[in-house]
Amino acid sequence: MEFVNGVKEKRVLDIREVLEGEYEGKEIRMNGAVHTIRHMGEVAFVILRKSRGLVQCVYEAGGTDFDIRDLKEESAVEVMGVVKAEERAPQGFEIRLKEIRVLSQPAEPLPLAVSKWKLNTSLETKLSLRPISLRNVRERAKFKIQEGIVRGFRDYLLSQGFTEIRTPKIVARGAEGGSNVFKLEYFNKKAELGQSPQFYKQTMVGVYDRVFEAAPVFRAEKHNTTRHLNEYTSLDFEMGYIDSFRDVMDMETGMLQYVMRLLEQEYKKELDMLGVTLPEVGRIPAVRFDQAKELVSRKYDRKIRNPYDLEPEEELLIGRYFKEEYGSDFVFVTHYPSKKRPFYAMDDPEDPKFTLSFDLMFRGLEVTTGGQRIHDYREITDKMEKRGMDPEDIASYLMIFKYGMPPHGGLGIGLERLTMRLLDEQNVREASLFPRDVTRLEP
Amino acid sequence: MEFVNGVKEKRVLDIREVLEGEYEGKEIRMNGAVHTIRHMGEVAFVILRKSRGLVQCVYEAGGTDFDIRDLKEESAVEVMGVVKAEERAPQGFEIRLKEIRVLSQPAEPLPLAVSKWKLNTSLETKLSLRPISLRNVRERAKFKIQEGIVRGFRDYLLSQGFTEIRTPKIVARGAEGGSNVFKLEYFNKKAELGQSPQFYKQTMVGVYDRVFEAAPVFRAEKHNTTRHLNEYTSLDFEMGYIDSFRDVMDMETGMLQYVMRLLEQEYKKELDMLGVTLPEVGRIPAVRFDQAKELVSRKYDRKIRNPYDLEPEEELLIGRYFKEEYGSDFVFVTHYPSKKRPFYAMDDPEDPKFTLSFDLMFRGLEVTTGGQRIHDYREITDKMEKRGMDPEDIASYLMIFKYGMPPHGGLGIGLERLTMRLLDEQNVREASLFPRDVTRLEP
Repeated sequence: MEFVNGVKEKRVLDIREVLEGEYEGKEIRMNGAVHTIRHMGEVAFVILRKSRGLVQCVYEAGGTDFDIRDLKEESAVEVMGVVKAEERAPQGFEIRLKEIRVLSQPAEPLPLAVSKWKLNTSLETKLSLRPISLRNVRERAKFKIQEGIVRGFRDYLLSQGFTEIRTPKIVARGAEGGSNVFKLEYFNKKAELGQSPQFYKQTMVGVYDRVFEAAPVFRAEKHNTTRHLNEYTSLDFEMGYIDSFRDVMDMETGMLQYVMRLLEQEYKKELDMLGVTLPEVGRIPAVRFDQAKELVSRKYDRKIRNPYDLEPEEELLIGRYFKEEYGSDFVFVTHYPSKKRPFYAMDDPEDPKFTLSFDLMFRGLEVTTGGQRIHDYREITDKMEKRGMDPEDIASYLMIFKYGMPPHGGLGIGLERLTMRLLDEQNVREASLFPRDVTRLEP
Repeated sequence: MEFVNGVKEKRVLDIREVLEGEYEGKEIRMNGAVHTIRHMGEVAFVILRKSRGLVQCVYEAGGTDFDIRDLKEESAVEVMGVVKAEERAPQGFEIRLKEIRVLSQPAEPLPLAVSKWKLNTSLETKLSLRPISLRNVRERAKFKIQEGIVRGFRDYLLSQGFTEIRTPKIVARGAEGGSNVFKLEYFNKKAELGQSPQFYKQTMVGVYDRVFEAAPVFRAEKHNTTRHLNEYTSLDFEMGYIDSFRDVMDMETGMLQYVMRLLEQEYKKELDMLGVTLPEVGRIPAVRFDQAKELVSRKYDRKIRNPYDLEPEEELLIGRYFKEEYGSDFVFVTHYPSKKRPFYAMDDPEDPKFTLSFDLMFRGLEVTTGGQRIHDYREITDKMEKRGMDPEDIASYLMIFKYGMPPHGGLGIGLERLTMRLLDEQNVREASLFPRDVTRLEP
């Protein structure tokens, strides 16, 4: 009988192993994709693309049995050669080639110059060729940083006693209601794709006190803007036993501080590659919704047209105001009008026209919506009835209030928006591996 | 201006803090849900349910201003009292109450006895009342363990140089094809819900060499069995530069070893609560598909009816065989027939009727499907054409082969099935927080 024991002897090295070991003058094996070949007469530079960096290999005619003219870009290869320190090489070392083994070959040359530092092409082309354009080192760096954001989100919340949950995406009814839901047929029943894990995460507060989920959500928004996606990743958490929605803002602030430290420590290479300056998250100003409108109206001499909503331009101005006045990239806007928040939002007992809720703006873009939720059964059913909603429709959600829920609140963060602002991108599609919008369903 | 700085002074303690600190004889505050109240004349025991355990509080008439008769089960409370060591209490200490503050109250008493050690009710009732039945400490323990499995999966793969990705769930075409796809209308285009991130994870191997994703997948299976869900979590990874599909099996084995260690270290409380014995994953036997059929046919005197597929009963017998003969809870079954594998599976050059693929059986249930994939453009388009498929239909996937892909392979693990077997449950619905099946779309 053959057995698998989980240990495989390493035959090939990775960049980090070479950097950490003492390989100068020694023969090593390494694999990778042929990113570029530069012919310089007798010598050629073969740049290998590895998962987190490029490695320079030097080919000398006569030094190997291999004829460099047979090598194609985007071939997968395993090379063998001697490590030499070389300041001008991307990793500070190069490999003097003795052997090149081709593992696989492309059928055709690339349709765009992936190995260029910047892809000089339209967003449209980049997205249509996404499977290939992501091979560009700066393109892929964005999503490595995105990985770091999600890791930081999870690791911080786990350290704060949260439990990770996974909730269904095919649901009977969306949490937000409205027209922007994708509908589907589910074994002769009507179903929807979840707009938010709202009902489920609140339910799980009754079970674990504090929960989080990082998962896709779906919104059938018909407008094609630079800030909307029809499928995106929502970083959700929900916590019980809060004293006020301020606890939720504290938790988010602590989480963002942790995320920035993690990025600084483990994603520096990618941040440098993209020239990203991480924002300060020491302390975040918090301002009431109505005050924020007033402040920017006064400072930037702008009429308040709609007292119940923030227009995108107003969001930008609020961001600008708090950057100029307080040097902050972030600002919490609190106490949103009740009529603009869902029924489960807790109204402010001091003025029920407003809610105990907040949005977080990051450089003028809303990246988080959160707040305290109603936890009392009568209160939530009364509010539903006032809004003309039928509690029977969502009885399996209201069950949690009927049988007892602690005071609680939470939030949802749009991962792609947060990434977009962090990377100073102008279109949220740049922060989604395979974006879904009104016209784009492939790749 | 108000500022949020992410630090909140702790007013209440958690179980771990009490266990780690020196609180004997000291006054503390703690919050939680009232799990049970046991009246014993002058004294009453109030059991608080916290996220990872129960805490015993002792109420003495006259000891507080609060009248215990006003307290309801499933209320959320904050208590204040003195810590006393008490061997018979769940955590080895109890709190002698001085104060009880009710934070919220249920509207009605619970419809089932959540505080019982075992919920004596049918699966059907448990699922219909899921938001409440999950408050049972043994029910919720299952999903805490499930959290640990996913954590282990991620942490191990990150340590092995993998990158975490998130890929779209609304897709133009499913990876597996066939009839078990959920269809939806996507802005006047036909779309489907992803059955697997297969195409996307292969695509991302061309970008990061090694990738993983833990996310929902959707299968419109019409049969209601104890092993199928219509939405489940797939733990997927895909790795480039493999020498053979054996590398994928090695990686999975190493990952499972890591997961079991993590569960042993950090989820012991929940494992003990459920009486779970973790399986040994030192080394896993690997047997060819055709040999496995032969072995069980001989040992258990069972006719081979279909040489190209494994029936559920055969899977059980294979599990039994390797447990009896090799003491292993796991067995890799390799070289599945080509006609039962998707077009992207690599055929065995030594016998193209079979593929370089495997399933992992855990106690007689298939929990993983994986293998080496075709990486050559001609080979994959030829195979598609032989199967009557049109390469034009999935051109944006085939693009990756046209422009070069390393040899690669990967797998998908059904999280709920793995959890189910680990916990020795008989129905996969026991391992999904809010299961979706042919008849169940709520809660």
